[in-house]
Amino acid sequence: MTKSRLEAFSDGVLAIIITIMVLELRVPEGHEWRSLLELWPKLLGYLISFVYVGIYWNNHHHLMHTVRVVRGGILWANLHLLFWLSLFPFVTAWVGESHFAPVPMTCYGGVALMAALAYTVLVRTIISAHPDNHLLADAIGSDAKGNLSMIAYLISIVAPFFGPAGVTLSGLMLLLVALVWLVPDRRIERVLARDNAGRD
Amino acid sequence: MTKSRLEAFSDGVLAIIITIMVLELRVPEGHEWRSLLELWPKLLGYLISFVYVGIYWNNHHHLMHTVRVVRGGILWANLHLLFWLSLFPFVTAWVGESHFAPVPMTCYGGVALMAALAYTVLVRTIISAHPDNHLLADAIGSDAKGNLSMIAYLISIVAPFFGPAGVTLSGLMLLLVALVWLVPDRRIERVLARDNAGRD
Amino acid sequence: MTKSRLEAFSDGVLAIIITIMVLELRVPEGHEWRSLLELWPKLLGYLISFVYVGIYWNNHHHLMHTVRVVRGGILWANLHLLFWLSLFPFVTAWVGESHFAPVPMTCYGGVALMAALAYTVLVRTIISAHPDNHLLADAIGSDAKGNLSMIAYLISIVAPFFGPAGVTLSGLMLLLVALVWLVPDRRIERVLARDNAGRD
Amino acid sequence: MTKSRLEAFSDGVLAIIITIMVLELRVPEGHEWRSLLELWPKLLGYLISFVYVGIYWNNHHHLMHTVRVVRGGILWANLHLLFWLSLFPFVTAWVGESHFAPVPMTCYGGVALMAALAYTVLVRTIISAHPDNHLLADAIGSDAKGNLSMIAYLISIVAPFFGPAGVTLSGLMLLLVALVWLVPDRRIERVLARDNAGRD
Repeated sequence: MTKSRLEAFSDGVLAIIITIMVLELRVPEGHEWRSLLELWPKLLGYLISFVYVGIYWNNHHHLMHTVRVVRGGILWANLHLLFWLSLFPFVTAWVGESHFAPVPMTCYGGVALMAALAYTVLVRTIISAHPDNHLLADAIGSDAKGNLSMIAYLISIVAPFFGPAGVTLSGLMLLLVALVWLVPDRRIERVLARDNAGRD
Repeated sequence: MTKSRLEAFSDGVLAIIITIMVLELRVPEGHEWRSLLELWPKLLGYLISFVYVGIYWNNHHHLMHTVRVVRGGILWANLHLLFWLSLFPFVTAWVGESHFAPVPMTCYGGVALMAALAYTVLVRTIISAHPDNHLLADAIGSDAKGNLSMIAYLISIVAPFFGPAGVTLSGLMLLLVALVWLVPDRRIERVLARDNAGRD
Repeated sequence: MTKSRLEAFSDGVLAIIITIMVLELRVPEGHEWRSLLELWPKLLGYLISFVYVGIYWNNHHHLMHTVRVVRGGILWANLHLLFWLSLFPFVTAWVGESHFAPVPMTCYGGVALMAALAYTVLVRTIISAHPDNHLLADAIGSDAKGNLSMIAYLISIVAPFFGPAGVTLSGLMLLLVALVWLVPDRRIERVLARDNAGRD
Repeated sequence: MTKSRLEAFSDGVLAIIITIMVLELRVPEGHEWRSLLELWPKLLGYLISFVYVGIYWNNHHHLMHTVRVVRGGILWANLHLLFWLSLFPFVTAWVGESHFAPVPMTCYGGVALMAALAYTVLVRTIISAHPDNHLLADAIGSDAKGNLSMIAYLISIVAPFFGPAGVTLSGLMLLLVALVWLVPDRRIERVLARDNAGRD
């Protein structure tokens, strides 16, 4: 029951984060196609952030399957992740408003990196709270995908300092990570299935 | 459990979408009846969008009854649907703000069409994830109601280009679809009931 | 399960309605006590609307205990209630912004009345969907409290047309209903307890 | 089931409170680091309020474990707590907007104190509704941590009247309480564990 409440609260926060971003898509002043076209940086930012938060919800969903005991440490590691995710609406709006200016791009990358680090901390906290359960440790393994994402985020943070081409590179890195993670993480699913098969 | 979390997240997002639309009903500057009357396009837009999101929640609710296994594909098809539904507050506000200008009307129809297509994709994804279960495939059948809605949406997208009468036609089409779907979809209910009867 | 999802969605919408009203408490421009004092109509409006939505959540909670079967009619009667409740943030903000001007007061009373009527419709729909279950019908009985509330709402709608004293009367009526309903409705609790005792 | 709905509603409200605070982090007008740096009072305020609401969610989560019967009194004591917590976004925004002006600081301390009192009332209401259950009464004990927090809140309310140093003291007190409570309250966990051990 404890776990289900943790899930319910996280789902609530993630549902709100993913939805209030649309409030930043302020209604354009004109009523022409041009007015809508001028919104494209905001619309693109909204789409990418929607995918990011969706990916976190998706992975969070899988991660929680491995949790057996909820301790204070897990609660706080989870809130820490939610904190960084809650800043997505802010950086998304800033990136859109500024038409991909360098500083907002760096901040977006920074929030994405901190969220990824917070997710890693949550995974480690869950693993250490379940010392007898090798499921999750196995499922994560060397976590090449996670490490590569971190590198991509670092590039997206640093690149905007190097002129317009850097800003484009930064955006491409963020897009790339989103695309890579769109393919759902089957590792936990696979290990859980193997484990179930072992029990039968 | 997985399924209940999918439902909980979708419910959360739909509850937020349906409610934040009211935030676009900005308080009028005056305190007279006239000030309220001037809000009528926003109020009408709010009412229709409320009904639309309500219909999707209602049908989503029935659709989820048929799901037995939740896979990555279903999660993403569901998020895809939520993405298009999350744009309803934006197009509703634009339509209201612009007093039913042609471009916003076309965009509203476009979002409605994309949401309908996303719903169809979700249905197909669920059917293909349950190859042994003919329930849903039976329940949907030829889906005349869904196909007619798509045609109505297409009209509501194209009509606004043909002057004021076209805008009115566009609005009527959107209203018509809302009314048609207000009658709850008993197909799934009926097939489920038949299935339960068969088991007894 | 169907019922629990109906409850979850309603809880979500009510939780959002009760919370987003605080967004209308715009931060005052000054940083003195005076700036806060000038907010008193908004703060008072927020408090009363919070109590109103709280009462509806409370009663909705009790009402749902009596539901056994969820049909399309109940879903729509429930959405209809949520629609009127969702207008509370709008009328609350207008009443506060206008420092209790007559037209906003009348509108607030009107939304309160429509929500009360929608609640009555929901109760009737639930009763008619459970013809064999006399529990709810017994619990509601002649519903003197509900009828008196309707009269108070009608007064709160009409009174503002008769000068400042009428506006005050309107406010008092709305306050009175809130206070009367703060005492939780023990009727359903009592009948349920009697029913359980009968089964033992 | 009644209890689970109370939890679900509270989780919903807390999730919304913790998330909508980010909406007050308005996008800065400039696109430079300076524009972000000027936001620091808002960002710091957001962080501290996020921790506060997180602490309340955490403790609420533990507290609800001890509830067996949900009565009207508990529902209202819970709504009363949610009311004061719902004012956190407002005072957080005011404190940030005013760059820690004395009156907003006092108001922040006041809301924090009222929320703490409301939490105490909720605890007492739950204890008195479970006269046979000594678990919670034992778990709370003399509640030194709670009493010390109240004193810290009182200082944070009064101190801002005594010049800039007082404002700093006020902020430090609020920070201190947050840090003290970050360490999760193991009292209830411990007593529950003892109780479970006794049953075995």
